[in-house]
Amino acid sequence: MAPAMSAKVVSLPVKEPSLSPILSLTATAMNAVNAIILDRMQSEIPLIPALAGHLIAGGGKRMRPMLTLAGAELVGYQGTRHHKLAAAVEFIHTATLLHDDVVDGSETRRGKETANIVFGNPATVLVGDFLFARAFELMVEDGSLKVLKILSHASAVIAQGEVDQLTAQRRIETSEERYLHIIGAKTAALFAAASRISAVVAECSEEEERALDDYGRNLGIAFQLVDDAIDYDTGTEDMGKDRGDDFREGKMTLPVILAYARGDADERRFWQDAVAGFRVEDEDLAHATDLIRRHGAVEATRERARHFAERACDALSIFPDGSARRAMVDAARFAVSRGY
Amino acid sequence: MAPAMSAKVVSLPVKEPSLSPILSLTATAMNAVNAIILDRMQSEIPLIPALAGHLIAGGGKRMRPMLTLAGAELVGYQGTRHHKLAAAVEFIHTATLLHDDVVDGSETRRGKETANIVFGNPATVLVGDFLFARAFELMVEDGSLKVLKILSHASAVIAQGEVDQLTAQRRIETSEERYLHIIGAKTAALFAAASRISAVVAECSEEEERALDDYGRNLGIAFQLVDDAIDYDTGTEDMGKDRGDDFREGKMTLPVILAYARGDADERRFWQDAVAGFRVEDEDLAHATDLIRRHGAVEATRERARHFAERACDALSIFPDGSARRAMVDAARFAVSRGY
Repeated sequence: MAPAMSAKVVSLPVKEPSLSPILSLTATAMNAVNAIILDRMQSEIPLIPALAGHLIAGGGKRMRPMLTLAGAELVGYQGTRHHKLAAAVEFIHTATLLHDDVVDGSETRRGKETANIVFGNPATVLVGDFLFARAFELMVEDGSLKVLKILSHASAVIAQGEVDQLTAQRRIETSEERYLHIIGAKTAALFAAASRISAVVAECSEEEERALDDYGRNLGIAFQLVDDAIDYDTGTEDMGKDRGDDFREGKMTLPVILAYARGDADERRFWQDAVAGFRVEDEDLAHATDLIRRHGAVEATRERARHFAERACDALSIFPDGSARRAMVDAARFAVSRGY
Repeated sequence: MAPAMSAKVVSLPVKEPSLSPILSLTATAMNAVNAIILDRMQSEIPLIPALAGHLIAGGGKRMRPMLTLAGAELVGYQGTRHHKLAAAVEFIHTATLLHDDVVDGSETRRGKETANIVFGNPATVLVGDFLFARAFELMVEDGSLKVLKILSHASAVIAQGEVDQLTAQRRIETSEERYLHIIGAKTAALFAAASRISAVVAECSEEEERALDDYGRNLGIAFQLVDDAIDYDTGTEDMGKDRGDDFREGKMTLPVILAYARGDADERRFWQDAVAGFRVEDEDLAHATDLIRRHGAVEATRERARHFAERACDALSIFPDGSARRAMVDAARFAVSRGY
């Protein structure tokens, strides 16, 4: 009998999740999408491309159109219809960003002054409307009623989610369930739709459509959770987000909801005052951040995000393993590791 | 030879143009449209129907959906598809009104406080977005890509017209041509589309489609001209419009453009200051109104409106005479007589 082999422990390098695979996977198609975006944001009114370009050229990650492109790779779609639709998705997203910044009175985004600061609220609202209309024109050119249905419904859900968030603002009683419902609408609905339409153009089965929808939706929730965690995460590098904005606006994001739920009576009083808008100084933000840290609320929020990211990855299990699926899994895991 | 007959002069009563015929023509269908509007502005977020209802229930004239309904009567359409589409048209219009009031900072509309005053700018922007998305959902349910194309394009044109108007604001050099281009986009594009889609659902010829488009477009221009005339017309009853708003906002409407063009050097200096925003007192408005009156600029604006209204009426000449056509002609003539 041969002697028992002694197990040789090979220390494999831990693979950090990365966006690189999905960026490579979609790079060529993204060039086509960017060309459509640049072409279709033009107008005889010079203020329109100036304002739209301020945001569109401002270094966005193009996450949502990337989902459409990656989905098309995953299902082996050979055509180019998804380029126009990915541009439409980005236009819808850009329109909502423009309106969000007006609604929140935001002053910076991605480290730059917001369009509402540079061009004023009126032009920002109207150029948002233009991009939204242009998105529908692009979809109509493509001609799929199914895609139009998915994206018009997503647009209505997004607007409802934004109004719902407004209603919940400065309301300390907002629950985690309510919060998840809001981000499911305002953020995840477009992720889901962007991902799903790749299956529609490729004429996949209903099951594949649903799987891509599930991937996008769960990824969108994870993405928003991490975004909201970063706003209170002092340990993280600057992500171009204006830290403390959520706090000053009295937004009930999960770190606050959890810190409030886990806090004692004194802390709860602090949160009630802060969310109501009576504690907006830097020292209040510092205290809030400290409470959130002490109760592990950022880590818990990230843990929730990991849960949804894993659901996103598992939703892809009906598709054969391959470079596209691995890239999408990696992207989901990267989304929750952002800022570490 | 018989003696020459003496002509007997019969004094026919001069028939005042009236909205009554078109209201009767479309009354039953409008009930169906109103039911759809009420049903489809609902949402699980209570703020949405509250805010939308504030404006929608606020006594609007439903001019645009009325054009869709009247057009359907004109071409003898027997179905009900146009009900949903007329509701979509009204939703697009309502969305633009909500955003307009935010953009202009308007405080009253139709004699009531605006939604932005009652509910704030953020909710008003977002509910506008919701209604816009809902309009597209209604169109998708109908399923005509041709209608979707017409109304998505009109929506993009409207937004461009609004931005163009913003660009022209406080610019004394704005010409009548530029002004006509702006109102052709911001107002007449939706009138044209609303009218045209009745021919699309009825599967009319391209010629009939174009005729209805021409009717709506010219009527829309006439309508906006009269609206802008009323803003400076002291001889008119209050139309629920906030007289003087255009003046204080430095909007270059035709009465101002004509008074400036016809004014002497002193008057032109006044207009330059006023449009630039340095003359915003009640006495300045009174002086402006007086200059406009002295130069016959309101009457000239109304005369331009009559011209476009007649073009609207003549566009219908390809359709057989009948109660629908007469009602639409009457409506166009009524539009320019408003406020007399």
